[in-house]
Amino acid sequence: MEEFRITFLPEHKAVYIDRGTDLLTAALKTGIHIYNSCGGEGVCGRCKVVVKKGIYITEDSGRISEKEREEGYVLACRTTPESDMEVLVPEESMLGDLEILTEEIKTTRLAGLYTPVEEIEEEHYKAALKIFKHGPLSTKIFLKLPKPTIDDNSGDADRLLREIKKQHKEINVIQMGLSNIKRLPRLLRESDWKVTATLGNRNKTTEVVLIEPGDRSRENFGVAVDIGTTTIVAYLVDLNSQKVLGTKASYNPQVDFGEDVISRIIFAQHEKGLEKLHHAVIDTVNSLIDNMIKEASLTLDDVTAVISAGNTTMTHLLLKIDPTQIRKDPYIPAVNFMPIIRASEAGIKINPRGLLMCLPCIGSYVGGDIVAGVLASGMYKIKDISLFIDLGTNGEVVLGNKEWLLACSTSAGPCFEGGGLTSGMRAMKGAIQNISIKNNFLEIETIGNLPPKGICGSGIVDIISELLKNKIIDRSGKIKENKICKVRDSEGAKELVLVEAKDSATLKDITIDENDIKNLMHSKGAIYTGIEVLLKEAGFNKSDIKHVFIAGGLGTALNIRSAINIGLLPDLPEKNFVFLGNTSVSGAKACLLSSEAMDYAEIIANKMTYLDLSTSSSFMNNYSAALFLPHTDIELFPSVKKLL
Amino acid sequence: MEEFRITFLPEHKAVYIDRGTDLLTAALKTGIHIYNSCGGEGVCGRCKVVVKKGIYITEDSGRISEKEREEGYVLACRTTPESDMEVLVPEESMLGDLEILTEEIKTTRLAGLYTPVEEIEEEHYKAALKIFKHGPLSTKIFLKLPKPTIDDNSGDADRLLREIKKQHKEINVIQMGLSNIKRLPRLLRESDWKVTATLGNRNKTTEVVLIEPGDRSRENFGVAVDIGTTTIVAYLVDLNSQKVLGTKASYNPQVDFGEDVISRIIFAQHEKGLEKLHHAVIDTVNSLIDNMIKEASLTLDDVTAVISAGNTTMTHLLLKIDPTQIRKDPYIPAVNFMPIIRASEAGIKINPRGLLMCLPCIGSYVGGDIVAGVLASGMYKIKDISLFIDLGTNGEVVLGNKEWLLACSTSAGPCFEGGGLTSGMRAMKGAIQNISIKNNFLEIETIGNLPPKGICGSGIVDIISELLKNKIIDRSGKIKENKICKVRDSEGAKELVLVEAKDSATLKDITIDENDIKNLMHSKGAIYTGIEVLLKEAGFNKSDIKHVFIAGGLGTALNIRSAINIGLLPDLPEKNFVFLGNTSVSGAKACLLSSEAMDYAEIIANKMTYLDLSTSSSFMNNYSAALFLPHTDIELFPSVKKLL
Repeated sequence: MEEFRITFLPEHKAVYIDRGTDLLTAALKTGIHIYNSCGGEGVCGRCKVVVKKGIYITEDSGRISEKEREEGYVLACRTTPESDMEVLVPEESMLGDLEILTEEIKTTRLAGLYTPVEEIEEEHYKAALKIFKHGPLSTKIFLKLPKPTIDDNSGDADRLLREIKKQHKEINVIQMGLSNIKRLPRLLRESDWKVTATLGNRNKTTEVVLIEPGDRSRENFGVAVDIGTTTIVAYLVDLNSQKVLGTKASYNPQVDFGEDVISRIIFAQHEKGLEKLHHAVIDTVNSLIDNMIKEASLTLDDVTAVISAGNTTMTHLLLKIDPTQIRKDPYIPAVNFMPIIRASEAGIKINPRGLLMCLPCIGSYVGGDIVAGVLASGMYKIKDISLFIDLGTNGEVVLGNKEWLLACSTSAGPCFEGGGLTSGMRAMKGAIQNISIKNNFLEIETIGNLPPKGICGSGIVDIISELLKNKIIDRSGKIKENKICKVRDSEGAKELVLVEAKDSATLKDITIDENDIKNLMHSKGAIYTGIEVLLKEAGFNKSDIKHVFIAGGLGTALNIRSAINIGLLPDLPEKNFVFLGNTSVSGAKACLLSSEAMDYAEIIANKMTYLDLSTSSSFMNNYSAALFLPHTDIELFPSVKKLL
Repeated sequence: MEEFRITFLPEHKAVYIDRGTDLLTAALKTGIHIYNSCGGEGVCGRCKVVVKKGIYITEDSGRISEKEREEGYVLACRTTPESDMEVLVPEESMLGDLEILTEEIKTTRLAGLYTPVEEIEEEHYKAALKIFKHGPLSTKIFLKLPKPTIDDNSGDADRLLREIKKQHKEINVIQMGLSNIKRLPRLLRESDWKVTATLGNRNKTTEVVLIEPGDRSRENFGVAVDIGTTTIVAYLVDLNSQKVLGTKASYNPQVDFGEDVISRIIFAQHEKGLEKLHHAVIDTVNSLIDNMIKEASLTLDDVTAVISAGNTTMTHLLLKIDPTQIRKDPYIPAVNFMPIIRASEAGIKINPRGLLMCLPCIGSYVGGDIVAGVLASGMYKIKDISLFIDLGTNGEVVLGNKEWLLACSTSAGPCFEGGGLTSGMRAMKGAIQNISIKNNFLEIETIGNLPPKGICGSGIVDIISELLKNKIIDRSGKIKENKICKVRDSEGAKELVLVEAKDSATLKDITIDENDIKNLMHSKGAIYTGIEVLLKEAGFNKSDIKHVFIAGGLGTALNIRSAINIGLLPDLPEKNFVFLGNTSVSGAKACLLSSEAMDYAEIIANKMTYLDLSTSSSFMNNYSAALFLPHTDIELFPSVKKLL
């Protein structure tokens, strides 16, 4: 078959591909990750590239404007070469480097993303996570074994277990692998019968994970991982001191195969699809762990426990379990309560006998990340009724108290993570995170105070709120002529220019159009309706909600007032709202450090009822009423009514 | 390096070897197993071969008689070629085919070796094994799962476990591997939610070993294996009906590397020694299992549990655990109570998730085979004091009752298995198994009524007894001139010709010399002294022994009267003696079929005290007194005193 050389600019990375291979696939082969949210189906229009040289076949797409078409823009996923080509990947189409390094975390920390647990713990829910008794997933104990004699002649392994049971009378069932026993005779004698045993809690039994010579009881490490649909965050934790020794985050490279869980479940059915998705996440987790242990001057063998929190699909893909049934009626996961396994069984590279625990899931669209969140919020322990909202792509909402918990997933879409918008971007350096209109003038604030590149989730919420307050858009989201922002036509819809090309870092206008506003209204409407349905199902009113816990990517940068103004959050006193940051990783860390926390996580998972909105008639009835700013029924938002 | 072609006769198997390689190693390469008990150290003199053609270097050995030297006999282990060679392996040096096929078992069954459990169970200790409640190591249960609905939406694995717990409320901790969960979504839907789960008892927890579509609960199979130093015996068992579906036995090919456990422990320290020993036993076990399941028209996947009983060294080698410390002061095994592992971890090929349980060992020289034997005897349940003797190479003896158990190993040597004797052979076709002197005439009885090839264990005991009674030997084992057997000189010692060359199957005289008698006296003296030391240690007398249980290769062919006459067994009424056959495999089978039996095996192992004779001063004092026929103190054998 004929081969063509494709060179990607500005990096000048080249690859040979067969005729018929699309440019999105070609880019992936060179290691360039192009943004796309539909898995290469020509739908999302995010994989725009500019052809600089060469002949090609492409499909027309409404996602490419007339002007862009003239400039050579095509959708990478719909374009195949007919000759060698040179293709420019514009910055807005780049997914960026896969790994967000520590510096990046520090930056985004300022923006409220990935607030490290140390900081969060000084916040409201400090108490929620601090109360758990220390009892990590794996414990190291130092043992001085009595030397064998003719009279005390039990076997080496029997002697070790005897001594462990002597020190820990509460341990009932104790297991030990063949590989440990094989090493034991030499190890015990060479270490003069002084060894350290790592004990793992494995499904209500205790297992000898590892035996090391000498006293290594102070060196006991584990990893907590949040497997987000968009981002993977890992903490390296000292299981003794309970300190976080390092944090790393990376995009979830599964984004290459589809932006949301549905498109990934579909991709998993392709040939080798499941394998590709699994490897993408495992390789990333391994690389995060590897970098953290290198920085902490540890070895892979020192890490004996990993705990992961992720939504149900992410957990399936981590374990290479086919997620097909998750999206087929009646939406049944392969497993919710995953037994603890060896991390190596899932391909995670730590100590070969180290354990992997996955936080339990509730149902197809409410997973271990939400269980971790409810655990971190403490709402499962108080009498007051609380609301927990994870403002991610899935937009999960949980209502309840210590008696009951009711959860749903709203498929909010990628808006709150900066996706699905003309100038949207993730909460990274240069993203507009807050905006306000003062004295008829647009004031913007970017992450890192750098020239603006685009708008992230919290920025979008602010903009819509400000535009609405200043009547630049009406309650249906239509753009009006005004004195503050330039209005122009864009493919039949009106568009507002927020930052002109000359002032932006990409030298392109940063804009928002009526379609973007419509997208945002769908997202906020879905979440708000989810809250309404849960309240109705449980027989409560908005006014019964005493606390609203907000978790997820928007973090502390979200302006609550703006969020109420657009009808994303219910109209409640601002003091009722609490930002929790990334509760998925902080809840996971709590379970890594405390079997008591893990017991509570299981109690939460057992107690929580999953409400499937796709089969809820009240959801569809309420949803269309929520597709207005703030809502069709303004009486639901009295504080906003006053402003308008 | 120069290579020579060595051709082994009578089979005409040829191999090329480097200069410096010995003939024993060369033979092994062609698949010819030459008998040797010292692991190729030139000590035992059992690997005699006859050089027919070629030049060679050899070492002088006292094991080769002048006559043999003239005929071209050399020790294979001490001979290296200097040219191409033709070498005859005489029948008496051949170990025989590695696998003793079913027909062979049938033959040896007649000779009392490997009495199948069905027959044994009709014997005395029927009650001992039949009382255990049926509860096999792995159980299959058929499950009709309720189909999931929007309201009953637990995950596939959660649903399966829920149903198992509903049916088996007694199960507390239940585990399930990732590989099963991965297969579950498709399997449940394709089988219309009707599946069979195999549950394994794994170290006090229950594990889902396997899930199959449809109702397979009636097809549940396991294997019980006796790993003897000399012989490996396997039973294929229907875990539901408790029937034995097939039996196979084979030599333990580790014999190539040394005949007793000590020489194998030494060999294990050679480069790749442990690996070779491990592979030798595992390959044999796998081939026995493979042949049994083929004959029963099953597949490897149908077998989900294996249980093994073996002495401590055999158990270590099965698991590839270094046995070095077993023979080093203070003689500590790596493990006595081996946790249940996956059979595949040890290299045993059954269902990849099938389990392997090893019967617990007591100490370095009393292993799981003896625990199985005590279990099979039932002596651990009765008030009467019993004696259990395993007449194998190790010669283990156990004294006790339901309150206490005291055990020792006497290193009896290979005499009772036909080893270490001029004309000794294993209990196979053509072996002289009984002999008597009637009317001054020697009457012999061979296995299969074939022309005699040599003498097996029970035959040796008979011969010594008859020679003593007829005063052909005196009480010190010296041969006298007599009218019954021809006496001649052999290398300074006297020799009796029992069968002349013309009447033997090998066309060589079948003889016994004073060295053979001395060997036998050492063996029987060791066992008798072991019994004496145990009695003394426990504070009892011979007359307190109500039952003597005899297990091992000699089986029911042993003439009790003869054994008492030579001082092997204590002088007790013959009715007190019970033959149990191969209790190692029958005890293992009981544990495979009943977790209650396994619990008893653990109780036995915990209760049994191991007495190390090598450090016992009373053993050395008593031992020399026992090196007489029947004993220096004839008063200990009043019934023998009458005969002499």
